Amino acid sequence: MRISELSQRAMVPLSAVKYYQREGLLPEGVRSAPNQVEYEGLHVKRVRLIRALLETGGLSIAATKDVIRALDVEGAPLAETFSVAAHAMSTPRITESVPSAESRERVMRLAHSQDWKFTDDNPGIDSAARALDGLSAIDFNAPDEYLVAYAAAAAAAAAADLHALTALSDPDQIAELMVVGTVLGDPLFAGLRRLAHEDGTHYLFPTNPNRDQS
Amino acid sequence: MRISELSQRAMVPLSAVKYYQREGLLPEGVRSAPNQVEYEGLHVKRVRLIRALLETGGLSIAATKDVIRALDVEGAPLAETFSVAAHAMSTPRITESVPSAESRERVMRLAHSQDWKFTDDNPGIDSAARALDGLSAIDFNAPDEYLVAYAAAAAAAAAADLHALTALSDPDQIAELMVVGTVLGDPLFAGLRRLAHEDGTHYLFPTNPNRDQS
Repeated sequence: MRISELSQRAMVPLSAVKYYQREGLLPEGVRSAPNQVEYEGLHVKRVRLIRALLETGGLSIAATKDVIRALDVEGAPLAETFSVAAHAMSTPRITESVPSAESRERVMRLAHSQDWKFTDDNPGIDSAARALDGLSAIDFNAPDEYLVAYAAAAAAAAAADLHALTALSDPDQIAELMVVGTVLGDPLFAGLRRLAHEDGTHYLFPTNPNRDQS
Repeated sequence: MRISELSQRAMVPLSAVKYYQREGLLPEGVRSAPNQVEYEGLHVKRVRLIRALLETGGLSIAATKDVIRALDVEGAPLAETFSVAAHAMSTPRITESVPSAESRERVMRLAHSQDWKFTDDNPGIDSAARALDGLSAIDFNAPDEYLVAYAAAAAAAAAADLHALTALSDPDQIAELMVVGTVLGDPLFAGLRRLAHEDGTHYLFPTNPNRDQS
């Protein structure tokens, strides 16, 4: 198929497909004539995946490249694939500030209290520590029970992620779900948390409690 | 204080502070002499907050503006403040694709199955639906038990968020924690989930199980 059909089938604008191509995210098509390049079903899938990582996952181009490169390595050890996925975070990596030492320690204490085994370079430590730093910018010092509730939620979601992986047998599929599931689990949770907030808010902060009592 | 001291106290580079200023995110300082502007403690707090929203929360400048504007409205109804927070998502809003109708319906069915009360324009529906679309791009059709586990995790985190709010009495502080907590709960959870992944991976996909058996 031509690039215009690739764009249509993937339901991604042609300008975006050309952008992915320029950024080296899309494998080359096969040149079938001097000014004609042919694409296949695999390209359609790849374009949809790139869009999901960039837009829904909010990854940078550089992080998206890392993820795609990890998927394209044949027979990479799965534990390594998970590490690439862990590093793919939606916040821009270059301008990131260094979290405070206190917040990093607090996150590690929390993780140890959950009996989690992890390495000191797990990027999750910095992500969570930066969130604590941001909360302290509004003078909110997260209480222990707050952090433990978040840790329990994260453990439950991670268990669901790992359970979904064990249901697969093809190593390529496992690697794909590892990285894509890690990245897209964030907006999935974020969306559901906003729905749960609205539900809880009805009870706690009714917009207009007297509306129906006229 | 001068802008250079503001930058130092907030621990944010001067170039970033000037950028926030140009983008209209920072309230004006008081002009104390023709070429001298004075800033106060409030500005230090605001600079730290802006950095947390932009970098840690991954918000766009436009979304950060919305959040800050909501915080600056005196006596806004808290339910409305929560709605502004719900709309502040880390994915860029302009280029966002429309999620598929099937995924939107699936998310709403999931939310109804949890007995959540919510409105159809809650932005969480689209965020979660886009994540499902992205997962289906790698042919992963999320099973019900997977989604229910995520919904339960989101409900637990949302309950912790609301509980933290009820511990406060100052409406300004409640509003601040509502929006900032909504935004920063995402990277907090994302970080902890990556730590929980590493913990779970040790058991499921050991890197080199025979290493210690030599």
